[in-house]
Amino acid sequence: MNDLNVVAVRWVDGRLGLLDQRRLPREETWLDIPDADAAGRAIADLVVRGAPAIGITAAYAAVLAARQRGDDLAGWHADLERLAAARPTAVNLAWALERMRRRAGDRLDAPDLEREAVAIHAEDVVANRAMAEQGSGLFVPGSGVITHCNTGGLATGGIGTALGVIVAGHRAGRVARVYAGETRPWLQGSRLTAWELAREGVPARVIVEGAAASLMRAGEIDWVVTGADRICANGDVVNKIGTYMLARLAADHGVGMMVVAPWSTVDPATATGDDVPIETRSGSEIWTAAGLEDAPDGITGWNPVFDVTPAEFVTAIVTERGVIRPPFNRGISALAA
Amino acid sequence: MNDLNVVAVRWVDGRLGLLDQRRLPREETWLDIPDADAAGRAIADLVVRGAPAIGITAAYAAVLAARQRGDDLAGWHADLERLAAARPTAVNLAWALERMRRRAGDRLDAPDLEREAVAIHAEDVVANRAMAEQGSGLFVPGSGVITHCNTGGLATGGIGTALGVIVAGHRAGRVARVYAGETRPWLQGSRLTAWELAREGVPARVIVEGAAASLMRAGEIDWVVTGADRICANGDVVNKIGTYMLARLAADHGVGMMVVAPWSTVDPATATGDDVPIETRSGSEIWTAAGLEDAPDGITGWNPVFDVTPAEFVTAIVTERGVIRPPFNRGISALAA
Repeated sequence: MNDLNVVAVRWVDGRLGLLDQRRLPREETWLDIPDADAAGRAIADLVVRGAPAIGITAAYAAVLAARQRGDDLAGWHADLERLAAARPTAVNLAWALERMRRRAGDRLDAPDLEREAVAIHAEDVVANRAMAEQGSGLFVPGSGVITHCNTGGLATGGIGTALGVIVAGHRAGRVARVYAGETRPWLQGSRLTAWELAREGVPARVIVEGAAASLMRAGEIDWVVTGADRICANGDVVNKIGTYMLARLAADHGVGMMVVAPWSTVDPATATGDDVPIETRSGSEIWTAAGLEDAPDGITGWNPVFDVTPAEFVTAIVTERGVIRPPFNRGISALAA
Repeated sequence: MNDLNVVAVRWVDGRLGLLDQRRLPREETWLDIPDADAAGRAIADLVVRGAPAIGITAAYAAVLAARQRGDDLAGWHADLERLAAARPTAVNLAWALERMRRRAGDRLDAPDLEREAVAIHAEDVVANRAMAEQGSGLFVPGSGVITHCNTGGLATGGIGTALGVIVAGHRAGRVARVYAGETRPWLQGSRLTAWELAREGVPARVIVEGAAASLMRAGEIDWVVTGADRICANGDVVNKIGTYMLARLAADHGVGMMVVAPWSTVDPATATGDDVPIETRSGSEIWTAAGLEDAPDGITGWNPVFDVTPAEFVTAIVTERGVIRPPFNRGISALAA
């Protein structure tokens, strides 16, 4: 994994390090994460974010917990349950912990669990590459793309999901124009995606979210390309707030909607997006994340972190197992088998 | 005008004062504007914003210029031309200066010009009240509304355009839920509209722009209500970037799109929105207005201040002369007569 330009989760000599993404791009500060509870706090506090990166972090946290618990399997399961509650929406967190539980079975073997966590991480790197290749193949030369939030190396173990597709498309000479929405309130677009694109040498323009519709009307955009925090059995996509907006506007303007996510994000056990708990954070963040004082009396913020894009507004779902086209329920069942 | 809760432009004893809206809500600082060039800078630098408030400011600035110019009519016209160039998109600036030119005719009479400027200001107050009454009549009880940018007392001479309609609808018991988009990059929604709604005692919730689509999908919204910077002969609406997004999403979700603006914003001389110059500000504002350092190398911002909403996505245009329904070209010609 040494050829990666951007790394957010580091496992070196059995120690877990997280790049503090709240401080990017101003500072590159690595935090040492000593145990599972510290990992849970780092996930809840957005030190690490992005569904795949959260899953990888949780897997390593389960190793740290196993070392501390010795042969206390029940205590370890309790640690994992607290970890799972750190953020409710992305399925990768639950998925990674479930893999660790299955590997453990009825006894804790920390070195064996470490091999599983490293495998989860390595598989994500490989999956990212496969998605980048397949997704970028959907662009025709001269394409304009817009992405949302951050889905690159910071959000994953490897080169990213949606952003990996865009960077690969640019390198292949098929993507001519890259736009990124700034992604309020936490500005993952202008802070993180802009920083990653600069590192990758991909010229790009950042816009406020309300400008995406105008870009589409001007004919600048051929594809919306986003990641996902959960993809349901019917193809409904749960992703960063603002994704549904882009998907509707894409449909209105004859623009394609491509969702890129590793198979670990697909959740065949959840029928539709309406069954997914949507994390709502404090409304104050809308003010404080903008450097403002809190809301005036009588005014609050409504701050859901994710939204649901119904499958009918999705053109293609790109996973490492293949590109899925509508009807998604059939394609997802087929690849799940 | 003493019954207004919010005032942005003050003309007291022949002196022009502007509330520095860049510092709101943290500080209420009034700036003394000594001459037309200072007024032009205040308009360009967003000390005062909102199409009607800009027009009123320009009218008073023309009075200040007339005092300084004595009987130098050509010098005064040059002052007005520089003022007109301060911001290109809103038509009210040009409209107010044209009224001042017509009133002046072939000789400068500063006291007479002062009466015209005060009349422009007073007419805006009256027009605001008329729009609030007519626009709020379109709501059925229990309505949910979303607005964008700031269109209240800070943006006008009186109680506002779209925000005046919403406050009146709330007082009349017809508006049950008020949402305001935060409006990046300058956060007019979370800084100014939230502050005005708190002053007016109207409970409201602020959202990031990307969340509007989810609100509509959840059935929370019956009307999008916005102001305008220019309304063209065919009913195309030029307004704050993000308005076109809301209009398309409204059409997608069976939500009404109400545009509220004084007649001075209607520009029958401009055929369509494609004929309007759209101000594009520095892309750096997307970073700096968020308190971030500037964009990394190779990355820029695309920062248009306005967008064009084609008339087909507008349900009703509310002016003090009446409510206009499609086909707008006919309604606008009729009211212009």
